[in-house]
Amino acid sequence: MLFFTQCFGAVLDLIHLRFQHYKAKRVFSAAGQLVCVVNPTHSLKYAPTRCAAAQASTEQGILPACHHHEAVHDPQLVPCTCPLFSCPWEGHLEVVVSHLRQTHRINILQGAEIVFLATDMHLPAPTDWIIMHSCLGHQFLLVLRKQEKYEGHPQFFATMMLIGTPTQANNFTYRLELNRNQRRLKWEATPRSILECVDSVISDGDCLVLNTSLAQLFSDNGSLAIGIAITTSKVHSSEAEM
Amino acid sequence: MLFFTQCFGAVLDLIHLRFQHYKAKRVFSAAGQLVCVVNPTHSLKYAPTRCAAAQASTEQGILPACHHHEAVHDPQLVPCTCPLFSCPWEGHLEVVVSHLRQTHRINILQGAEIVFLATDMHLPAPTDWIIMHSCLGHQFLLVLRKQEKYEGHPQFFATMMLIGTPTQANNFTYRLELNRNQRRLKWEATPRSILECVDSVISDGDCLVLNTSLAQLFSDNGSLAIGIAITTSKVHSSEAEM
Repeated sequence: MLFFTQCFGAVLDLIHLRFQHYKAKRVFSAAGQLVCVVNPTHSLKYAPTRCAAAQASTEQGILPACHHHEAVHDPQLVPCTCPLFSCPWEGHLEVVVSHLRQTHRINILQGAEIVFLATDMHLPAPTDWIIMHSCLGHQFLLVLRKQEKYEGHPQFFATMMLIGTPTQANNFTYRLELNRNQRRLKWEATPRSILECVDSVISDGDCLVLNTSLAQLFSDNGSLAIGIAITTSKVHSSEAEM
Repeated sequence: MLFFTQCFGAVLDLIHLRFQHYKAKRVFSAAGQLVCVVNPTHSLKYAPTRCAAAQASTEQGILPACHHHEAVHDPQLVPCTCPLFSCPWEGHLEVVVSHLRQTHRINILQGAEIVFLATDMHLPAPTDWIIMHSCLGHQFLLVLRKQEKYEGHPQFFATMMLIGTPTQANNFTYRLELNRNQRRLKWEATPRSILECVDSVISDGDCLVLNTSLAQLFSDNGSLAIGIAITTSKVHSSEAEM
């Protein structure tokens, strides 16, 4: 009996996922993009100070020894960049992707334009939705975070980080787009390097920020579809400050 | 002596305005748009409840009698829609624009695309930056408001209202664009009718919302340049919810 109940539950889950996938495809139908359903993960890491020293991250791929175990002796080693866990792993930048996939089970998607469909937006903060995105010969980490910067007022923060150095990151532009209910919100920026800390990018507010009310306007049945596009950056024609 | 000091002050002000104008033009140089320098006004109206009843605004251009004087007897009359003052004026929708110009000294600008350059972003909340925008045969009211929804955490809210009925408003789409420091933020939506209340649109958060940190990233020397474009709305091709 239990077996049949579980089977029925699994079938219902599959139908639900299929339905969400279909809905996200409708919203971003024009480009025929790949839709990735991303389930939330309750963040187990409560250590914003973990990265306090990391803001001075350098160009050589060295991250200061700001993590919780012994200091890094090999300057080529970087600590685990998974935003979810305080993980003692460290390794070369080239193997960060395989560590994130294998140890933290973060999915990786291919394609220049994808749709990130974050489910269960109602879950309490802190919650993260994370995928990796492989594009233009590089890998990017997309993080959507629900966090209470002001107690009792959760906000959503979305950013894209290059799994590479800041110099490499400067070669790209990423775009996040929300589109629903006759409203459209677009954020375009240069991705930050994963050597800078996700936590500090979010605490600086230098990313797409959504209040709960706006997140609800853009959500459909508790899921938020974010269109993602990455391009190699060119000097913005209407940008004078560069 | 006082005369010379004042003359010198006026010349300095002119140079400063000219410089700001030039800077805004640089940021949005591509389209060669009209730049309008908008000075802040400290909001004298502290009555969010003024519009509580107005949310049920109807299609016939009638606003419920939610203002502070005697009830409206002529259903064609609307109260003053100036977001700055609790003004006892009321009149027909067609004369709202001239009332706002003459009594509240709100500037009106012509052109499909303009740049709204809000100065002195550092001023404490509540502060409003307001202009009217004449375009496609209609007049729009652009409101940028600095407000503390959460005490001690001012945010910026920008929205565009049509000085017309909700049915007329549905025919347009407005776009607000910020572009600086290799970051770009675009908000696109259908304008709300001025018969709905600016205060309620902002308290609902159904507008462009900027945290202080993002506002600083997009500001240049205390001024925020917002590119504005209005178009007649067409069904968004990638929008399924309409």
